Amino acid sequence: MVALRFDGSALRAIDQTELPWQERELVLETAADVATAIKCLAIRGAPLIGVAAAYGVALELARDASLDSLERACELLAGARPTAVNLSRAVQLVRAAVLAAQDDRAAAALAQARLIDSAEQAASDAIADHGALFLQGSKRILTHCNTGALAAPGRGTALAVVAELAERGSLERVLATESRPLLQGARLTVFELSRLGIEHQLLVDSAAAGLIAAREVDAVIVGCDRVAANGDVANKVGTYSHALAADAAGIPFVVAGPMSTIDYGCPSGAEIAIEERDPDEVRFAAGRSLTIAGTKCRNPAFDVTPAALVTALVTERGVASPVDAASVLALRSR
Amino acid sequence: MVALRFDGSALRAIDQTELPWQERELVLETAADVATAIKCLAIRGAPLIGVAAAYGVALELARDASLDSLERACELLAGARPTAVNLSRAVQLVRAAVLAAQDDRAAAALAQARLIDSAEQAASDAIADHGALFLQGSKRILTHCNTGALAAPGRGTALAVVAELAERGSLERVLATESRPLLQGARLTVFELSRLGIEHQLLVDSAAAGLIAAREVDAVIVGCDRVAANGDVANKVGTYSHALAADAAGIPFVVAGPMSTIDYGCPSGAEIAIEERDPDEVRFAAGRSLTIAGTKCRNPAFDVTPAALVTALVTERGVASPVDAASVLALRSR
Repeated sequence: MVALRFDGSALRAIDQTELPWQERELVLETAADVATAIKCLAIRGAPLIGVAAAYGVALELARDASLDSLERACELLAGARPTAVNLSRAVQLVRAAVLAAQDDRAAAALAQARLIDSAEQAASDAIADHGALFLQGSKRILTHCNTGALAAPGRGTALAVVAELAERGSLERVLATESRPLLQGARLTVFELSRLGIEHQLLVDSAAAGLIAAREVDAVIVGCDRVAANGDVANKVGTYSHALAADAAGIPFVVAGPMSTIDYGCPSGAEIAIEERDPDEVRFAAGRSLTIAGTKCRNPAFDVTPAALVTALVTERGVASPVDAASVLALRSR
Repeated sequence: MVALRFDGSALRAIDQTELPWQERELVLETAADVATAIKCLAIRGAPLIGVAAAYGVALELARDASLDSLERACELLAGARPTAVNLSRAVQLVRAAVLAAQDDRAAAALAQARLIDSAEQAASDAIADHGALFLQGSKRILTHCNTGALAAPGRGTALAVVAELAERGSLERVLATESRPLLQGARLTVFELSRLGIEHQLLVDSAAAGLIAAREVDAVIVGCDRVAANGDVANKVGTYSHALAADAAGIPFVVAGPMSTIDYGCPSGAEIAIEERDPDEVRFAAGRSLTIAGTKCRNPAFDVTPAALVTALVTERGVASPVDAASVLALRSR
């Protein structure tokens, strides 16, 4: 299963809003197509939306290689979602490559997009190795949201670690939280774990803390949407609760993500913009109304877990543990 | 709105599984009818299922006043759900009243059921007063699951405190968690708050901790299904996460419930049986499938919050704070 592939003239992506019921491929031909797919979460996962946005700029330049076109595409794509830093960073990298190009801007954009894509794939493999070493021997792992091959190029981030542990033979089972409101756990992680043949159990998000306290979980591993310079982690709403429960139970709480997710320009979690999404995501589940029509809602898509609650940050450059400004900075120079 | 009323020959209950879409009244004529309504959560809430079960025994004795009939009804009703102690306690009280009766067993059972019902109604008013005094001045309150007039005779427990705060004028708004899997927050608390005219916002359970950390909540108040002698609290799954978040943010985490919910025979939360319910509750929401058919699930209906995380336990006899074995025991002799 490949979540995203560039076919030479278009970006083809599995529409993740329709999984696990349908495997429909979207054909995206413009920056606007890609931005829309990112906004509606047809393409999601911090590393994956970065790569998609990079291809989005390249697609636009193939149609119109003017600098105006470049700026419009960059603005549109970088603004599609606010929290994951991978998105704006990938767009900036492609923009810089285009501005530095001597001749063919479209070719420069595409080359840069392909470079980001292959770097993220390599990062995924390295994260899987480092994470599996850090968590070796763990039998029962709890994970939140979706962080596998649907969330990042290659094998993913946190779920790549889980898959590697399964390959190495220690893993007994995965506890996957459903991840309301959009059910990335129930829809996507269950789908990926089924394909991988890894034993798993699904639970509502609220059930995680009690099972952790009851010693039914050996470690928690999640992905990340933005890591601040001090190690604070913005990730899918609900992550912070799992971190608190893991801390109270004294089990490892591990965050996995590529270096592209670390925002060294952001001092701490307090400076991370938390996207607040459409209240209908709360009012409905899988298209079915759950409450009185028009009920007012809060719908933050992410929360911030303080670095002090994170046992380890696993990147392609290795593991920062304990997680603090010094250890996060040290990753940069490895 | 009255969740439950005895009409002289039958117990009439709003079918809470159909709220907020339909207000359908169930007419329950036997102990088996009542037990089924409790099991499927048509009648729910720790105090309410106690009262319903008491009427259930009385209904059965009105049909067959033999001691065999009494024992069968008591066994059936006390075993309908395992976690809330109110259920077994109410059944025991009715059974004892019947065994002590000189003549009319059915009348003795009904008199005892009515006594339990009116005592719980009075408890609700007292809880509202004590809780509103303890939380006076609180503007933004987060609550979990449903603890209003649908969960207990009278005004309810935690939501009765919220309603009293609203009447006293300090309350700005309630943040109500949806309470997956069965959505008692989205369906029932939103319904009750709408009827009461109290400003509210609905959120997924996972969003609570982040909003608490972001200082958007002044206090958390929840009900309880069983309180152990040391003050550990079993309540709707997800409660423990909110307690951890409140503790980390330094805001009050308050538990409200009648004395009938305290199980002095249970030393600590470790001894409380946690009901594990049908996996289809996790696989579906409001009748719509959320995941791959047949996915294995964990579905604990409750979790345990350690006493140390509970700022105050509000009962009809007053407030225990801090919450520990001594303060919980002291409530008994007030």
